[in-house]
Amino acid sequence: MSETWTISNDRYFDPEPSRRGVARQLYKSVRGAAIVSPHGHVNPGLLADPEATLGTPTDLFIIPDHYVFRMLYSRGIPLESLGIPGRKGVPVEEDHRKIWQLFAENFYLFRGTPTGLWLSDELTKVFGVEEKLTGESGQRIYDHLQSRLMEQKFSPRALFAQFNIEVLCTTDGAADPLKHHRRLNEEGWKHRIRPTIRPDAVMAVADAGWLEAIEDLAEASGTDIVNYRSFVQALEARRSFFRDMGAVATDHSALTPYTQRLTDTEVEAIFARALSGDANEEDAARFNAHMLVELARMSVEDGLVMQLHVGSLRGHNMQVAERFGPDKGADIPLSTEWTRSLRPLLNEYGNDARFRLILFTLDESTYARELAPLAGHYPALLLGAPWWFYDSPGGMRRYLDQTTETAGIYNLAGFNDDTRAFVSIPARHDMWRRVTCDWLAGMVVSGILDDEDAAEMASDLSYRLAREAYGLDEETSIRSS
Amino acid sequence: MSETWTISNDRYFDPEPSRRGVARQLYKSVRGAAIVSPHGHVNPGLLADPEATLGTPTDLFIIPDHYVFRMLYSRGIPLESLGIPGRKGVPVEEDHRKIWQLFAENFYLFRGTPTGLWLSDELTKVFGVEEKLTGESGQRIYDHLQSRLMEQKFSPRALFAQFNIEVLCTTDGAADPLKHHRRLNEEGWKHRIRPTIRPDAVMAVADAGWLEAIEDLAEASGTDIVNYRSFVQALEARRSFFRDMGAVATDHSALTPYTQRLTDTEVEAIFARALSGDANEEDAARFNAHMLVELARMSVEDGLVMQLHVGSLRGHNMQVAERFGPDKGADIPLSTEWTRSLRPLLNEYGNDARFRLILFTLDESTYARELAPLAGHYPALLLGAPWWFYDSPGGMRRYLDQTTETAGIYNLAGFNDDTRAFVSIPARHDMWRRVTCDWLAGMVVSGILDDEDAAEMASDLSYRLAREAYGLDEETSIRSS
Amino acid sequence: MSETWTISNDRYFDPEPSRRGVARQLYKSVRGAAIVSPHGHVNPGLLADPEATLGTPTDLFIIPDHYVFRMLYSRGIPLESLGIPGRKGVPVEEDHRKIWQLFAENFYLFRGTPTGLWLSDELTKVFGVEEKLTGESGQRIYDHLQSRLMEQKFSPRALFAQFNIEVLCTTDGAADPLKHHRRLNEEGWKHRIRPTIRPDAVMAVADAGWLEAIEDLAEASGTDIVNYRSFVQALEARRSFFRDMGAVATDHSALTPYTQRLTDTEVEAIFARALSGDANEEDAARFNAHMLVELARMSVEDGLVMQLHVGSLRGHNMQVAERFGPDKGADIPLSTEWTRSLRPLLNEYGNDARFRLILFTLDESTYARELAPLAGHYPALLLGAPWWFYDSPGGMRRYLDQTTETAGIYNLAGFNDDTRAFVSIPARHDMWRRVTCDWLAGMVVSGILDDEDAAEMASDLSYRLAREAYGLDEETSIRSS
Repeated sequence: MSETWTISNDRYFDPEPSRRGVARQLYKSVRGAAIVSPHGHVNPGLLADPEATLGTPTDLFIIPDHYVFRMLYSRGIPLESLGIPGRKGVPVEEDHRKIWQLFAENFYLFRGTPTGLWLSDELTKVFGVEEKLTGESGQRIYDHLQSRLMEQKFSPRALFAQFNIEVLCTTDGAADPLKHHRRLNEEGWKHRIRPTIRPDAVMAVADAGWLEAIEDLAEASGTDIVNYRSFVQALEARRSFFRDMGAVATDHSALTPYTQRLTDTEVEAIFARALSGDANEEDAARFNAHMLVELARMSVEDGLVMQLHVGSLRGHNMQVAERFGPDKGADIPLSTEWTRSLRPLLNEYGNDARFRLILFTLDESTYARELAPLAGHYPALLLGAPWWFYDSPGGMRRYLDQTTETAGIYNLAGFNDDTRAFVSIPARHDMWRRVTCDWLAGMVVSGILDDEDAAEMASDLSYRLAREAYGLDEETSIRSS
Repeated sequence: MSETWTISNDRYFDPEPSRRGVARQLYKSVRGAAIVSPHGHVNPGLLADPEATLGTPTDLFIIPDHYVFRMLYSRGIPLESLGIPGRKGVPVEEDHRKIWQLFAENFYLFRGTPTGLWLSDELTKVFGVEEKLTGESGQRIYDHLQSRLMEQKFSPRALFAQFNIEVLCTTDGAADPLKHHRRLNEEGWKHRIRPTIRPDAVMAVADAGWLEAIEDLAEASGTDIVNYRSFVQALEARRSFFRDMGAVATDHSALTPYTQRLTDTEVEAIFARALSGDANEEDAARFNAHMLVELARMSVEDGLVMQLHVGSLRGHNMQVAERFGPDKGADIPLSTEWTRSLRPLLNEYGNDARFRLILFTLDESTYARELAPLAGHYPALLLGAPWWFYDSPGGMRRYLDQTTETAGIYNLAGFNDDTRAFVSIPARHDMWRRVTCDWLAGMVVSGILDDEDAAEMASDLSYRLAREAYGLDEETSIRSS
Repeated sequence: MSETWTISNDRYFDPEPSRRGVARQLYKSVRGAAIVSPHGHVNPGLLADPEATLGTPTDLFIIPDHYVFRMLYSRGIPLESLGIPGRKGVPVEEDHRKIWQLFAENFYLFRGTPTGLWLSDELTKVFGVEEKLTGESGQRIYDHLQSRLMEQKFSPRALFAQFNIEVLCTTDGAADPLKHHRRLNEEGWKHRIRPTIRPDAVMAVADAGWLEAIEDLAEASGTDIVNYRSFVQALEARRSFFRDMGAVATDHSALTPYTQRLTDTEVEAIFARALSGDANEEDAARFNAHMLVELARMSVEDGLVMQLHVGSLRGHNMQVAERFGPDKGADIPLSTEWTRSLRPLLNEYGNDARFRLILFTLDESTYARELAPLAGHYPALLLGAPWWFYDSPGGMRRYLDQTTETAGIYNLAGFNDDTRAFVSIPARHDMWRRVTCDWLAGMVVSGILDDEDAAEMASDLSYRLAREAYGLDEETSIRSS
């Protein structure tokens, strides 16, 4: 048997005793708080179907997690050998034990990374693994996990209860019929599992799949989409449906945050070109810039909180994209300009008390330079949690340090886990809670905060800010606006 | 009565005992040093008039301070309700007690921010407030402050003496008659309160107010401004006047640091278009680029130190600008490029021993990448203190860490407070002194500095570098050059 | 006699006792490891000639080191007075004692800088200087150094042995006959001193010296370079020669990482213009973009590891360039865009198991945003050590923090010293080892790493990763490919 695997109770805390003491106290007061997960990518089918299971250890930890297989791929391990489903009949490894073994032998690659920390937390705390994952222990741990995964108490619904999740928002296409959410609503889960409308596909007018997405939208909304005007109506109809199904927010991905209101003539012309299959990249960029302003207008009217995730160049590796499709760990961030880009949108709606816009960036150099000054001025703006490559202990600290000097913590939207890995949710929230408590403790022992303020801030960062940012406490008033 | 308000004597110091011990020793040696404030925005009228007072607590702490009301505004509190004077008869709250109450109730928004730290320091150390500012204690604290503010020892001149300010430089328009400075000079304050010429308004050839600014400049300088050549003469005349009134420096704000010397023909053509009211944005950018080089030439000749503050997009929020005018917390930084932009100016004057240029940035990503390498090479360059959104404990540390590796501390211009909030001056300098002492202590306990060097550096950073950078110790020689 | 000069045995370690304890343990296990120096600029003649000496203290420490004289120059000390050889008969100081005195008097400028730390380490540890370098002690220390430098045990070869250098790679022009390497190879040093081909001069088609560089290349390769095709053949011939002489890598400097494969017609047209002396800046940029892709293709074929150093604007100060030539401390970094720029190259070769590309940046804002996500995905990519302005304790920490969250440590290429200052090599590697051990210790005491993993990582970072990245352990297989 290999080394015993113990996870420190003081993980992510600074070792200096006075600071650690304060951090422990603060953490003690928030560790048990319910989880609010207002943005993420968990498959709602896992929870809608009481019989759903999490599959094999390889199904659970490797195949769907691009954080995991991107690292393995970067060190020369083919995606095929990891069982990642390929396009066009690419043959891939199907032996889950063999895949797990490869993962176990290379688990050392994750040393010091957030992925390594979440996995360690999940394996030890959720599944009770007691020896360190290595090539030597790999098969024993596989056996252990497999037997756990067959138990009823490791079913998604049982884990949902055990994880103490108060609310979990999913991310769904504009045309999605939300059948899982419907089933959950009927069972009384309406306020716990909420959909989020993400209409990216219907906005990408130059993409190959756009016409099909528009057809789906037309059908789902019962609207004949013949021009821009009817497109907007269809989108509004879907937003209304999502709201009725429990949604509190929308989500949008954009290469840049460039916004600009086009004239009706311009936007109708672009839309017409798109319907004829003639829209080009320039059209797409201008249409997107316009739609971001339009989506803000819709949010002012229907009260859905607008989320904007900016700056990922998707599918950077064309060879991987061709063989394996999107979301295969080849999305690479870009330098992002917010100040000028977002100005048209903010000048229209940034002062409107009915509007709330939450921004997520992959360019940390904009935290202190652009995002905190913007959020520290415009009433409508909040800053979303450190995103994607930055949801590490260090990434969280840089985010807190660089945004709160100017914007304070009350212009933040709290934490969200943004994960498709359901079982990693507690580990991710726990990391945030530990890091924020340690960060607050650092300010306490440097005379910047007193104990009373720090305790309230710990609770706000762990729980309350997320509820407030997404209007989870003001449902009725939003609904009636 | 609410919680007692005590400010730690060890604030901003790292808690690790050996480092804290060194920091305390270093701080002890510099805490009493006189304050040198070579750049800021204090109204000289406060000091010129022996009868001047600081007004009500609301006049003092809220209405003039965009750091304060921008945060309140960002959380949905209208500027009108904070008594911010509006344009065009916008009705605003006039009850200062009511405004104070709103501020007190929302003071928690400033937790962990530099504004919160300065305010805490001022309220407790300068005014002797003993209970924490909250909605509950707000009115009692208002009473306390109001009675203090009526005492003679809280008059601006009494506080100036108490603050131990050795020299305070103001910032003044090119056409300013400097009547307050004249009065102060006549009373013997010439070397203590100095003007600084900031000719931004006369350089902005595409702005609505430019022609009026040129008229004012013509009148103030006694020059008929009919072309670029006479404009330069007028500017030189004003610089000469400012120098006679005690100025040691000029100051310039620019959207970018782009510099380029235009031909006489080009610059005269732009100036002619501007006089006809026909200059466009492109003209303005090129004229500014040229004038930065010209201003460097003037500094070489008259010995005034040139300060350059780059990268703020002023008045980002047009709705706020229309209702309330400029400087209302809606100025947002931009990404800045220094290496190529400043090259033409530096190639003309960067090697000239008579020239000194101090750079201020709002883009921290340029500290280590561009500014420190430039300052660590060109004899004329010094780096100004962390500016505006970065005058926080964390901002100061990032500045020190990222500039001094390459440029050392002797290419820094020391500290300046850049404030219009007169009463915050000691708190700001104290924060700088504490943070620099703690930063030096960190290097002492890591074996990077010895105690002797650290002590000298603490004194240099707190006091001497600012005097040297602005030539306050070489007055006579500069004057005679 | 002035103050005794002692260098702390715990330098660069955090003072917190538990962390320091772990750091000491880790450091103890790696401090004695042999030095692997896979990239640098040491003159191979120093080692090829058994009679070579290091010259005077001024020859050794000041004249060749642009880190040293750039700082002195920035504070107003003319390069002439430092003995820096000028162009066109510029008269320079020749009295090495006088130059040393000036240096000694201004040694305080280096307080807290990596240059100051290396110099302190070299003077005390290598040369046994016992008093601090000041104007007062300057001449005594000069005497001390001069007598040491005349001893046999301070000859380059003796120091090479004493420094425990296992392998040292030099950087050499494409046409270099490698006579020093040949001599060393003949003496049996082939695997210890290796050349690296850096063909920058033959790629710069718009530079004044390009035609001459091409002539040299033609002669060295025995190829008649009449068009692009024969140019490529000549380059391949030189690569083959370098490989035979022991090279494991190539090196390339570029203003930007922009890559693009041109058509044969385009590239031949540019080359033809260049041969006629008509290539412009646009041609040069496009040719460079194409050649980076071509060089990757060559690396795939011949197994030489490709190094890319990006983002230095060389010779920023034209006055200094005219008087003193290149490499005089006036190279200034630029903001760098990697994600889009490198995509064409990576899409051709980034997935190829035979290819290895090591990237070096001067733009730290790209560590977490672009470089770590790229290296954490593409099999061919590794990240080079913190470069140039960033080889400081703080620069190393920022690099480790910001790259390893996403890429782990196993996508790093270990350390290289990149120095022309032979005697500084141990100090630089020691700094890296101390900083990495302290960084790992920080993760151990925060429960992020266990002791066993940390110990292995310390060894990997100090030694093994560099050997692996440059294929020093797989020589035979590379050679035979």
